[in-house]
Amino acid sequence: MNLETLLYGMGIAAVAVNASSGVLEAGRRPFDLFGMVVVALAAALGGGSLRDVLLDRTVFWIADQTYLIAAVLAGLATFALVRLVRLPARLFLLPDAIGLALFTMSGTQAALSVGAPWLVASLMGVVTGVFGGILRDMLCNEVPLVFTGELYATASWAGALTLVGLLALEVPAGWAALAGGGLVLVIRLCAIVFKWRLPVFVARN
Amino acid sequence: MNLETLLYGMGIAAVAVNASSGVLEAGRRPFDLFGMVVVALAAALGGGSLRDVLLDRTVFWIADQTYLIAAVLAGLATFALVRLVRLPARLFLLPDAIGLALFTMSGTQAALSVGAPWLVASLMGVVTGVFGGILRDMLCNEVPLVFTGELYATASWAGALTLVGLLALEVPAGWAALAGGGLVLVIRLCAIVFKWRLPVFVARN
Amino acid sequence: MNLETLLYGMGIAAVAVNASSGVLEAGRRPFDLFGMVVVALAAALGGGSLRDVLLDRTVFWIADQTYLIAAVLAGLATFALVRLVRLPARLFLLPDAIGLALFTMSGTQAALSVGAPWLVASLMGVVTGVFGGILRDMLCNEVPLVFTGELYATASWAGALTLVGLLALEVPAGWAALAGGGLVLVIRLCAIVFKWRLPVFVARN
Repeated sequence: MNLETLLYGMGIAAVAVNASSGVLEAGRRPFDLFGMVVVALAAALGGGSLRDVLLDRTVFWIADQTYLIAAVLAGLATFALVRLVRLPARLFLLPDAIGLALFTMSGTQAALSVGAPWLVASLMGVVTGVFGGILRDMLCNEVPLVFTGELYATASWAGALTLVGLLALEVPAGWAALAGGGLVLVIRLCAIVFKWRLPVFVARN
Repeated sequence: MNLETLLYGMGIAAVAVNASSGVLEAGRRPFDLFGMVVVALAAALGGGSLRDVLLDRTVFWIADQTYLIAAVLAGLATFALVRLVRLPARLFLLPDAIGLALFTMSGTQAALSVGAPWLVASLMGVVTGVFGGILRDMLCNEVPLVFTGELYATASWAGALTLVGLLALEVPAGWAALAGGGLVLVIRLCAIVFKWRLPVFVARN
Repeated sequence: MNLETLLYGMGIAAVAVNASSGVLEAGRRPFDLFGMVVVALAAALGGGSLRDVLLDRTVFWIADQTYLIAAVLAGLATFALVRLVRLPARLFLLPDAIGLALFTMSGTQAALSVGAPWLVASLMGVVTGVFGGILRDMLCNEVPLVFTGELYATASWAGALTLVGLLALEVPAGWAALAGGGLVLVIRLCAIVFKWRLPVFVARN
């Protein structure tokens, strides 16, 4: 199995994991099955879609409907599973962190490949990683979780900047992505375990 | 009057009807006239715009501003009408169902015409049909109605899949669209009358 | 300093001012630093991004990352400043009005330059001017302020129509933009001072 195949499989896995997170979030509200599928698709495909629209690329799940099928199946499976088994809520934090790392790397690389400058490219990585979750929360009429919880986007940005920096130093793409993605994963998991947060700005009025 | 002209007229009508629904929804909140026009435009043009942006086509109301004018006029007329006459709220469900059927057919056909695979094309029909309403509700800071009420997106998806299936069997496009659109309309109207709903997922925690 | 350079500088200033407004709005909620930066970027870049995506142009801040840097720096500076000094909330209304005028003119001209018809072009000016603020409020889970307060979008539309009309009369672009932008500014400032509002639609049920 070569790197290309591995990355593709991990991308599919990231989409599926995010779809699951959408179903779990929507489950806190009295949505019907369709509402849940929409939130699952928004969570799974939203970040990559925004990246592709902003970069004027063909939207990834329109070009290859495997992603769409994976998201729908993962959403339905989660829907069924949650009715059968009581899952610990924190179980999903590990695959979700893997998804964040993968989406960040793929988003940054996609932006670099169309010639975006470094700051734009690193932010595209963050957008790809976190926008799905923001959309999921907006559809559920809640304040986006990513704005208030443990380090999430910060982990994503640190990894994206690492990738951009290593590529500028002419490190091979595979190793640079491994280092950047690994950094995302480590920061995110440490943030969960040690409750790392960014300073919160409280207005005085 | 040929099929082409009929479809165009029905598209304009669908845009106008959705604009009306936007004004009626925004009227529950203390929005000013502009806020109402924005919600009307979002409801009327949102689904088709998202479809065109995702498919990388020219956005339909930028290519032909008749749609935009129809949406603004319908919004203003509704605004004026509601101040004069008390309308039964359920009056709008029939034209709204016709709009859903029309948008679903046009969205699915647009996606097929740029070579989208079948699942993507059928979902584009659903997106075109329901996204305007989702956007309308998000702007009004409410949980999207389409997630919680009688069968709506399900009707749309059933019709879109019927269209895709009939076209694959080489049924002429006009008849396939008639069958698919009719199915959307029948399911939606039955759902309203008989209160058909999808199962609701209630979290146990 | 020629007109081109002046407009570019004013565009950067408009982006920076809108980023500040995003930080001030997000500050009313317990967002972390990243949440605030996202809201700042959405407020600063949202309107122009939607315009560019709808018109199928290269998104302005991807083509030139100066805008992105200006938005991030302005957001961080506001974050720091608000912790040190208590600023009068209404201080930001003047630069915000200047930003509205600038965004409206640049949005309308961009739409005309790709051949959009007059109504679409004037609405693109409004979209560019107000969508950033709508996005900012949606991310903060609030009803968009632009729908309920003093004349805002109306000022924008009046200026956009003025620009389109003067250009149709073959007034040179620089003067037409000055007149249109000036009109936006005057209407908006008068609306703030004299509390001009559009009629509010209150539902009877």
